[in-house]
Amino acid sequence: MYVRKNLRWNVVWQLTRRSLFLFTIYNTAVCFLYGPLNIHWLDIPWQPVALLGTAVAFYIGFKSNGSYDRFWEGRQLWGTIVNTSRFWAIRAFDYVHATPDEVTPEADDISELHRRLLYRQIAWCNALRLHLRRQTAAQWDTEVAPFLPPEEAATAKVLSNPPTHLLRRQSIELRELFQRGLLTEFRQVALMRTIQDLLNAQGGCERIKNTPFPRQYAYFSFIFVWVFAAVLPLGLVEEFDSRMALGQYHVWLMVPFSVLVSWVFNVIEVVGHTSENPFENDIYDVPMTAICRSIEIDLRELLGETELPSKIEAVDDVLY
Amino acid sequence: MYVRKNLRWNVVWQLTRRSLFLFTIYNTAVCFLYGPLNIHWLDIPWQPVALLGTAVAFYIGFKSNGSYDRFWEGRQLWGTIVNTSRFWAIRAFDYVHATPDEVTPEADDISELHRRLLYRQIAWCNALRLHLRRQTAAQWDTEVAPFLPPEEAATAKVLSNPPTHLLRRQSIELRELFQRGLLTEFRQVALMRTIQDLLNAQGGCERIKNTPFPRQYAYFSFIFVWVFAAVLPLGLVEEFDSRMALGQYHVWLMVPFSVLVSWVFNVIEVVGHTSENPFENDIYDVPMTAICRSIEIDLRELLGETELPSKIEAVDDVLY
Amino acid sequence: MYVRKNLRWNVVWQLTRRSLFLFTIYNTAVCFLYGPLNIHWLDIPWQPVALLGTAVAFYIGFKSNGSYDRFWEGRQLWGTIVNTSRFWAIRAFDYVHATPDEVTPEADDISELHRRLLYRQIAWCNALRLHLRRQTAAQWDTEVAPFLPPEEAATAKVLSNPPTHLLRRQSIELRELFQRGLLTEFRQVALMRTIQDLLNAQGGCERIKNTPFPRQYAYFSFIFVWVFAAVLPLGLVEEFDSRMALGQYHVWLMVPFSVLVSWVFNVIEVVGHTSENPFENDIYDVPMTAICRSIEIDLRELLGETELPSKIEAVDDVLY
Amino acid sequence: MYVRKNLRWNVVWQLTRRSLFLFTIYNTAVCFLYGPLNIHWLDIPWQPVALLGTAVAFYIGFKSNGSYDRFWEGRQLWGTIVNTSRFWAIRAFDYVHATPDEVTPEADDISELHRRLLYRQIAWCNALRLHLRRQTAAQWDTEVAPFLPPEEAATAKVLSNPPTHLLRRQSIELRELFQRGLLTEFRQVALMRTIQDLLNAQGGCERIKNTPFPRQYAYFSFIFVWVFAAVLPLGLVEEFDSRMALGQYHVWLMVPFSVLVSWVFNVIEVVGHTSENPFENDIYDVPMTAICRSIEIDLRELLGETELPSKIEAVDDVLY
Amino acid sequence: MYVRKNLRWNVVWQLTRRSLFLFTIYNTAVCFLYGPLNIHWLDIPWQPVALLGTAVAFYIGFKSNGSYDRFWEGRQLWGTIVNTSRFWAIRAFDYVHATPDEVTPEADDISELHRRLLYRQIAWCNALRLHLRRQTAAQWDTEVAPFLPPEEAATAKVLSNPPTHLLRRQSIELRELFQRGLLTEFRQVALMRTIQDLLNAQGGCERIKNTPFPRQYAYFSFIFVWVFAAVLPLGLVEEFDSRMALGQYHVWLMVPFSVLVSWVFNVIEVVGHTSENPFENDIYDVPMTAICRSIEIDLRELLGETELPSKIEAVDDVLY
Repeated sequence: MYVRKNLRWNVVWQLTRRSLFLFTIYNTAVCFLYGPLNIHWLDIPWQPVALLGTAVAFYIGFKSNGSYDRFWEGRQLWGTIVNTSRFWAIRAFDYVHATPDEVTPEADDISELHRRLLYRQIAWCNALRLHLRRQTAAQWDTEVAPFLPPEEAATAKVLSNPPTHLLRRQSIELRELFQRGLLTEFRQVALMRTIQDLLNAQGGCERIKNTPFPRQYAYFSFIFVWVFAAVLPLGLVEEFDSRMALGQYHVWLMVPFSVLVSWVFNVIEVVGHTSENPFENDIYDVPMTAICRSIEIDLRELLGETELPSKIEAVDDVLY
Repeated sequence: MYVRKNLRWNVVWQLTRRSLFLFTIYNTAVCFLYGPLNIHWLDIPWQPVALLGTAVAFYIGFKSNGSYDRFWEGRQLWGTIVNTSRFWAIRAFDYVHATPDEVTPEADDISELHRRLLYRQIAWCNALRLHLRRQTAAQWDTEVAPFLPPEEAATAKVLSNPPTHLLRRQSIELRELFQRGLLTEFRQVALMRTIQDLLNAQGGCERIKNTPFPRQYAYFSFIFVWVFAAVLPLGLVEEFDSRMALGQYHVWLMVPFSVLVSWVFNVIEVVGHTSENPFENDIYDVPMTAICRSIEIDLRELLGETELPSKIEAVDDVLY
Repeated sequence: MYVRKNLRWNVVWQLTRRSLFLFTIYNTAVCFLYGPLNIHWLDIPWQPVALLGTAVAFYIGFKSNGSYDRFWEGRQLWGTIVNTSRFWAIRAFDYVHATPDEVTPEADDISELHRRLLYRQIAWCNALRLHLRRQTAAQWDTEVAPFLPPEEAATAKVLSNPPTHLLRRQSIELRELFQRGLLTEFRQVALMRTIQDLLNAQGGCERIKNTPFPRQYAYFSFIFVWVFAAVLPLGLVEEFDSRMALGQYHVWLMVPFSVLVSWVFNVIEVVGHTSENPFENDIYDVPMTAICRSIEIDLRELLGETELPSKIEAVDDVLY
Repeated sequence: MYVRKNLRWNVVWQLTRRSLFLFTIYNTAVCFLYGPLNIHWLDIPWQPVALLGTAVAFYIGFKSNGSYDRFWEGRQLWGTIVNTSRFWAIRAFDYVHATPDEVTPEADDISELHRRLLYRQIAWCNALRLHLRRQTAAQWDTEVAPFLPPEEAATAKVLSNPPTHLLRRQSIELRELFQRGLLTEFRQVALMRTIQDLLNAQGGCERIKNTPFPRQYAYFSFIFVWVFAAVLPLGLVEEFDSRMALGQYHVWLMVPFSVLVSWVFNVIEVVGHTSENPFENDIYDVPMTAICRSIEIDLRELLGETELPSKIEAVDDVLY
Repeated sequence: MYVRKNLRWNVVWQLTRRSLFLFTIYNTAVCFLYGPLNIHWLDIPWQPVALLGTAVAFYIGFKSNGSYDRFWEGRQLWGTIVNTSRFWAIRAFDYVHATPDEVTPEADDISELHRRLLYRQIAWCNALRLHLRRQTAAQWDTEVAPFLPPEEAATAKVLSNPPTHLLRRQSIELRELFQRGLLTEFRQVALMRTIQDLLNAQGGCERIKNTPFPRQYAYFSFIFVWVFAAVLPLGLVEEFDSRMALGQYHVWLMVPFSVLVSWVFNVIEVVGHTSENPFENDIYDVPMTAICRSIEIDLRELLGETELPSKIEAVDDVLY
């Protein structure tokens, strides 16, 4: 996620330099043909261009909306993961304890149980992040494994869907706690609902990841902008040429203004494109690494740990 | 679901060739009448055409939105089915087991029970997919039956709504487990809520399938685009004709540009149309076959099976 | 609900003939005054007309959206009714049975209980449909009464809100089952939640029925379209008249094109109007009769009945 | 809520007469200066006016949408209150009764308990209505007090938030019923959830009441319309003046058409304004009085009462 | 939150004075170059400016919508906090009491328990407000500490997320009440769901706070408006200059009108900006201080306290 209030010019430049370059060449070519070379049949009336521009503006507006909604849904799902992780922790602390009429386990043992339940939740958050960014193979050992018992970490890594497996482990742990008498049936079912919330959030992220904005919508948005940019100077060239202040050079004034209008349409399309896929490890991503770290800090603070890792800070204005 | 980032030209061509062809003939005819034949009363002023174009652009924008929402709701429902299938599995594993004070059934028996509950869930997903695509008769025996006890598969196939029947079977199985003492009442009721979630997802899919986008909205969107395309060259022809660069031939320049504008409007309408009905077994469908397979892999992996089927891959850029 | 992919021309004709007729007379009159009678002060510049057209197009687009949302919410509520009816059936079967430590009632008696609970649910669906369409007096005896015990049918018919009363009866029945020991307290409360879902769906339908689209919004949408249609030819007439191809007759060309533009605006408004009130027994209704029948088939099939009524088919392309 | 299908002219007149009057004076003044007085520097080109009109049309469209959503959310909240009141009644009847193993209270006593729980619910609806309309002081004794025990009515009236207090009383009553053995713990918790639903609906209404549409949005919508109306005739005057049919009088034709366009923009803004605040006791309100009465009828009919008040009818087309 | 129906001019002035100033200078400069200095090559045709204006109006309309949604979601979350605080109080009163078969604690003790649970809830609201506005260090001792036991206040203040810690304390208190026999397990789990609702509301607020409107969207909205304002006078200047009423001075008329149009676009953008971040302690904030106070009054009144603080009133039309 880009966090600087105003985009730096190099970001703007990177987003749009290719288009700017192509627009400039094309518009210059049109001017050259129309002005010096006097090929006037290039000139078309403005009316169809204006109508095309309006229709295209609508369409890319519609697509911007849809793309933004995808980003925001992704962010909301990770917000849910934050809340649910905290609630998992709070419930774990106060539901998992010795019931009066059972043999009380040692206090240390209970603390250890709490720690395992919370650490596995941290592991799940990290595992989901790696799964969405396709980084499981590369970063599992540093990001997920430290929060799991060794053999569990090794088993889960090679499965087709590691985060699901970790929630399955939590569920098994709850059943065992129930069987040991450290968790009542009623509370077990309540905790299982938290697992359901996590499964739903995970599934929502996977849905956004696996189902791109329907290609037929997105692709034509791209095509329309370029078609419009192609037609624009043909409609403008005569309008500029007919003004006489600069004589035969006046037509060249068209280039900057035609490029400017093309650029605005292009930027709207490209900006929509940036937020279409929020889990791609690029600079417009939902900042999952930062969110995971913040969950880790929260949960470890709740465990009473004092040596906490620091928050992730933005690097070059970008928070991953 | 089409998965290639940019549509191949043959897809674009198939979507729009018929319209392109008709637009070209019609615009050529108008030019021929106006230019060579000199029938100038065809010429109408541009103003009403521009206004019509704006109104039509609004209307097809509104319809695009509605169509996209139908696709996305369909996709969300199948996302819910993925999540709920996983949760069904996790709950089944840790809720269905021998309670301490009952006669413990053999471990094998419990595993078999788990397997039956999960396989029937896979069967339900496939049955719902076939039901939505109207393929029950053709594919039931290969897609659904292998996951069910033989007589159950035979009975369900011929009913009016097989997926509902399968959920009814799950519910009966839960009651029997309760009566055998393998499931507490409290957990039975919790599992029944999962069945409710599945019934809701199924009903949502059926709603989208059975209730098309209201025909009066959709049909006029189609009519408006063609009316606009019919009027467009009448408004443009004089504008092109009055430019003189190519002399009497200049009017023919209208054809490509008028066709282009008509084509853009037509594409917006047609693209909206592609996502209106997301369960029709066409290339813009929600990829239910792939989702069902992925559920099958998840659930069989959770059962500890190792000979898993492979994921469905896109064929010719399309994932079904 | 109109189900044919493309509207038949007689439907289009019925929707718009009155407006078409008035538009034609009015536009002809304007032409007659401007052309033959030479009353040129009718002519106004095009600019305010274009601006008016844009603003009106926005406004009727906004209203179309709102109207469509009302239809779709109505359809979703009936979708919920379908799902919840099925879930009611499934829960009833597997929750209402003899508990081990009670005197077991005869199996026949239990089946009869199930049948009563499901038939009353069918009765409720039909009663709600009649209530929304204001047909209770006329059709209660054929549509609702057959599914209820005679005296219950007679009592409910004359109350101010029969569907609420039927849900109250279900609730009473559940309490009696609890008191007889055929339903545990926990399951009673779970079934009551299903009654809550049904009450919410019923209330949602009543809300749409009783609260029309705010009249101030809807009425001005209608006024604006007619104001626009009144002003349109005044702005166009001079534009057509100034073209000379047909000499003094050229002005008459305005009539078809001005009528066409008026017609498009009018259709957008009228189409929005069709879906504003989805429970009025007209051809654009939510197809409640068909949905109720389909619920009846589902529930009676679940009861094991084999002599099932047939599905409601569209008559003249309309499904009620 | 205005209920007549078409607004009466006097309603339209009242909504817009002030603006119409000012628009007419202003436009006449512009004509007078431009025509007879020949002050031509008033004339500005049309282009910036058209662009301004488009931008303003967008903005007031956006605000219309937001205002309508506020009304509709208000209506939905009261729909929820209707549903939840019915469900409260149904639950109260079948949850509050003597449990088998307790001393059975007299049947009369139970009926009296039911009556108290339902009457207090009616009282709450009325109290919420008065609270939202700031009529507690004036109408409490006639609208709320009759449904409450006298001392309870007197206590609640003077508190800062009477409806909250009534729900608190319901909660206390439930606890007492539990302590007397007339309500199980499980059912008490279930009924408490209904109280939560009511608290949420109440809070939603208070939120809409206390948080107006952000003033910066709403105020500029108003400003923009008047700025546009001020600029409009300056852009139009020359266009009308340049037409010659009526000679020097032609310019006066501008007045009706300029006023008409201003009026349309003004109406869109004003209509949005009417539904911004749906709890203000004006003619566009959510019809809370009618809804409360209908709840009263429903609940008293469920209690078996036969002397029911009549429904609230619209007076002068308005339902309060 | 600004509460005056119409914004005072000084608020409008502050919002827009900088832009107004810059627009005026720039437009005057353009006029000066074009008129007195006769540099006519500045003049560009109007067509690309109009198209640019339309596209920009769409884009800032889209952004306004998104910004408003952020404000309204923030307000809804605080509405949820109000409702849930009340429900917490009501549940606490009637769930936490001596069960019949336990040793009854002194009545005073129970009241003290209730008071502690409610005061901590008030503390949480205030702590969340300070956390969102980054005022924890400055105002904790006056706003939060008075509602907490001293050592608890001191501990929580220095943690990374004090509000989460306070909810953790509530959860611990509930467990202790359960262990002392003052709260049944079933009611404990019900109260924990209220804690979940509060965690979700808190997480939602943090999400809005920590994730700004995606910068790429917001920044280009700003850029586009200024690009448009830069191009506007170039397109208008010739149109004004060509009118002759004031001779060579007529061109200067462009300045006010061009500034006006720029100003309208700028205001739409700026107004959107005001509601983008609703927790920044500025005059367009969600009025969290007032809401917290109102929760405090509600809860203390429910506790039977009579010396209540007064409501927060707007100061200079602003409610914080």
